[in-house]
Amino acid sequence: MVESADLPQKMDGKSFRKLEPELRQELLSAQLEMIEKKAFSTLIVVDGMDGAGKGESVARLYEWMDARHLVCNAYGEPTDEAKARPRLWQFWRDLPAKGETAIVFGSWYQRILREHVAGNMDDKAVGQELARVRQFEEMLALEGVLVLKFWYTLPKDEQKRRLEKIGKKKNVARHVLADWAALKNYDKAARLGERIIEETGAADAPWFVIPSQDAQYRDAAVARTIAKAMRARLEACKAKAPAPARVVIKRSEAGSPVDTIDLTARLDEETYAKKLKKLQQKLSDMSDHKDFAKTGMILVFQGNDAAGKGGAIRRVIRPLDPRIYKVYPIGAPTDEELARPYLWRFWRRLPRKGQIAIFDRSWYERVLVERVEGYARPEAWSRAYGEINEFEHELTDFGFIVCKFWLAISAEEQLRRFQARQETIYKQHKITDDDWRNRLKWDKYAVAAGDMIERTNTDHASWTLVSSEDKRHARIEVLKTICKELKRRV
Amino acid sequence: MVESADLPQKMDGKSFRKLEPELRQELLSAQLEMIEKKAFSTLIVVDGMDGAGKGESVARLYEWMDARHLVCNAYGEPTDEAKARPRLWQFWRDLPAKGETAIVFGSWYQRILREHVAGNMDDKAVGQELARVRQFEEMLALEGVLVLKFWYTLPKDEQKRRLEKIGKKKNVARHVLADWAALKNYDKAARLGERIIEETGAADAPWFVIPSQDAQYRDAAVARTIAKAMRARLEACKAKAPAPARVVIKRSEAGSPVDTIDLTARLDEETYAKKLKKLQQKLSDMSDHKDFAKTGMILVFQGNDAAGKGGAIRRVIRPLDPRIYKVYPIGAPTDEELARPYLWRFWRRLPRKGQIAIFDRSWYERVLVERVEGYARPEAWSRAYGEINEFEHELTDFGFIVCKFWLAISAEEQLRRFQARQETIYKQHKITDDDWRNRLKWDKYAVAAGDMIERTNTDHASWTLVSSEDKRHARIEVLKTICKELKRRV
Repeated sequence: MVESADLPQKMDGKSFRKLEPELRQELLSAQLEMIEKKAFSTLIVVDGMDGAGKGESVARLYEWMDARHLVCNAYGEPTDEAKARPRLWQFWRDLPAKGETAIVFGSWYQRILREHVAGNMDDKAVGQELARVRQFEEMLALEGVLVLKFWYTLPKDEQKRRLEKIGKKKNVARHVLADWAALKNYDKAARLGERIIEETGAADAPWFVIPSQDAQYRDAAVARTIAKAMRARLEACKAKAPAPARVVIKRSEAGSPVDTIDLTARLDEETYAKKLKKLQQKLSDMSDHKDFAKTGMILVFQGNDAAGKGGAIRRVIRPLDPRIYKVYPIGAPTDEELARPYLWRFWRRLPRKGQIAIFDRSWYERVLVERVEGYARPEAWSRAYGEINEFEHELTDFGFIVCKFWLAISAEEQLRRFQARQETIYKQHKITDDDWRNRLKWDKYAVAAGDMIERTNTDHASWTLVSSEDKRHARIEVLKTICKELKRRV
Repeated sequence: MVESADLPQKMDGKSFRKLEPELRQELLSAQLEMIEKKAFSTLIVVDGMDGAGKGESVARLYEWMDARHLVCNAYGEPTDEAKARPRLWQFWRDLPAKGETAIVFGSWYQRILREHVAGNMDDKAVGQELARVRQFEEMLALEGVLVLKFWYTLPKDEQKRRLEKIGKKKNVARHVLADWAALKNYDKAARLGERIIEETGAADAPWFVIPSQDAQYRDAAVARTIAKAMRARLEACKAKAPAPARVVIKRSEAGSPVDTIDLTARLDEETYAKKLKKLQQKLSDMSDHKDFAKTGMILVFQGNDAAGKGGAIRRVIRPLDPRIYKVYPIGAPTDEELARPYLWRFWRRLPRKGQIAIFDRSWYERVLVERVEGYARPEAWSRAYGEINEFEHELTDFGFIVCKFWLAISAEEQLRRFQARQETIYKQHKITDDDWRNRLKWDKYAVAAGDMIERTNTDHASWTLVSSEDKRHARIEVLKTICKELKRRV
């Protein structure tokens, strides 16, 4: 928490006009360099008391900065598309690309403030919410987002005077009218504000308290703070990147979970056909059931190359109404995706309630291919385990069912399948040079898979390890697991 | 309109099973080549009678094609985000990238069907709607989308039998229940279906009528039709691209509108300050007014380089609540944008009702820089005039106010500004080698601008030509125009 921007808290018109060109120059030049370098994005959270002039303050930023690379995203009552997805979805959706600056007006703190003031969220619940907000902001910061949070404050009597003035305006749209309840709840809101600042004011996403009685001080302080922070980040980017951290993954002594999979299971054609039909019928009925509209499902398929992910997915979607599911193959990210935190591409693909999203490869590539091939630095992939657990927690908390499958085959079986693919004309597209190269790194991938399963096998989203040496057996296991999970909810 | 896929309309299980591997191979190999080449995308419109098994038919496509590059987008009742934007927005949002295939379930025809059957849209209105749908589909086709439309039909008694059966199911979600009214309105819907097929069945977006009593015939016919169409398009892509068409732009004899702009207007500092304050206050009041929430505004800024677009925009946004507007600078498209029809990047930036979107450069770059620099082929930019008019018509029909500004300066004034920019440290970023290069093509840009204004100066979205030789004059003209347009609605 920082209270000062090295400026006098009361500023007369003359000294403000004197300061202005210098401030603008400071802010604009930092922003322009950020735009040019495209090394990070800036997220400015604007929060605090009603009537403090947050809107005016943002308008000033638009005037002083390059408005073409600045956007203000305002969040009021969530739209129905937002309501149908976990609460952070709308904020993720609007995350700025590298080089861009976004202002968050009505941030993730608003819901906590509103609920707490209304008496729907007790102190303990507030603490839990704030802890999760912290994790979200920490992740953003580590992913290269410069997060700056401003808390605008106003003395009680001044707030009263201002809100009364606004209330007298006629025929204005809703966003102009301040929340009248704010006045009544001044003390409660102010106390929670202090707590928010204390508990979420980490160095990687600091709070800046802005006393807002004097509009000129307010705007100057905000501008200088942003300029300084951008400049500091630009300098940090210029410094030589540190050598990759050495990451030590603590493993359980029981050995890699991947090695414990019994690959001998087999299913004969006839039993398979019977079971398949029964399970698909079950899946069809449950997904058509009206209770399913209240939940939603996210299926993650990972596994050795050629383990049969595609075939398993086809058996899952066969009985589903095509209007309720989508299959997402995860390959190389687009440039819009690369310009944002890596989980952005999955947030933008989240299903609505009542829908099913099937990921053929997923966010786990971060700790598999990106780790093994060195696309992500050790400090990046090693923190991804926790970030992924938190992400999935958001999903299950919202009511989604999350099923994760690891389809395992032996190295020998993989070789047989690769060869078979090369020999069958309409399967040749499924085998590339990459596949052969990855095969040479079988052991490294096995270690990565073991670590992944051990560290992301949570209560809310557990892994199902599926022996896929026999495809029939694997498909039935997948369907069985999905039906079992659905059964608990429908 | 095509009724046959060279298949018998009744198919027993045995002949279907015999045909299946061949059909799958045909379809999959065409799709895989499309995925690999990334030369076009495929849009499959699934429409027709309730109970015909459209869902089942789509499920079959998922089974036979590479499901990872196939998505089914289902549209029911529009969400509130869709309702806050022109009706085509939701379809634009989901347009597939090149290489991808998207199924449209509940297409743009559904609203027409629903409204007509309910008696809310008479024959004449239907005709107008269908004409606009045609323009939309034609544009998609010309932009490289393979548009295939399937109309599933069923005899009346068969539909009755099926809908009754579905109606008996218990506890099912809403999407499972067929529309019971369908039965009552069979004749009316069937007649409109025939009209739709007749009036929108152009060669570039053909209808295929699929008699759906026999599910095996239905699925085989759809698959074969898609496979053939994809294959034909792939062959067409292989053929040598024709030489660019020679485009002749018919010009009015009055000379280029750009040349008619009187550049002598000036405004002194004092008058400017007074007018600016008054107009900004007006703009603030009107945009805060509750009536503005029922409309919305789209501002387009084009003009000579260094004409002062940025400065004018800053004067417009100064009095606006930062929660209601967004500024979009239009530079090079991202790869996600390049993979789709060029208007996609603007549809995805459309404001909601009650909001203002400000485009600093816009879709008009298609007929300016893309024309002059040769980034778009003559046959592409020359049809863009009509496409843009249609696009803006969608916007104004929906209730948006569209203001387009052409900011004009003389070649001499541009030179002075370029030189001044190079001399002022914090303006140097605004002048690049490109600017100097473009300047050498001053005449070509003037011709392009003249053609643009002449051909896109419509009743619903007219151009305002602004003399910007004097920046103060230009800014006041822009604000005046916006206030005048707003005044008619608020």
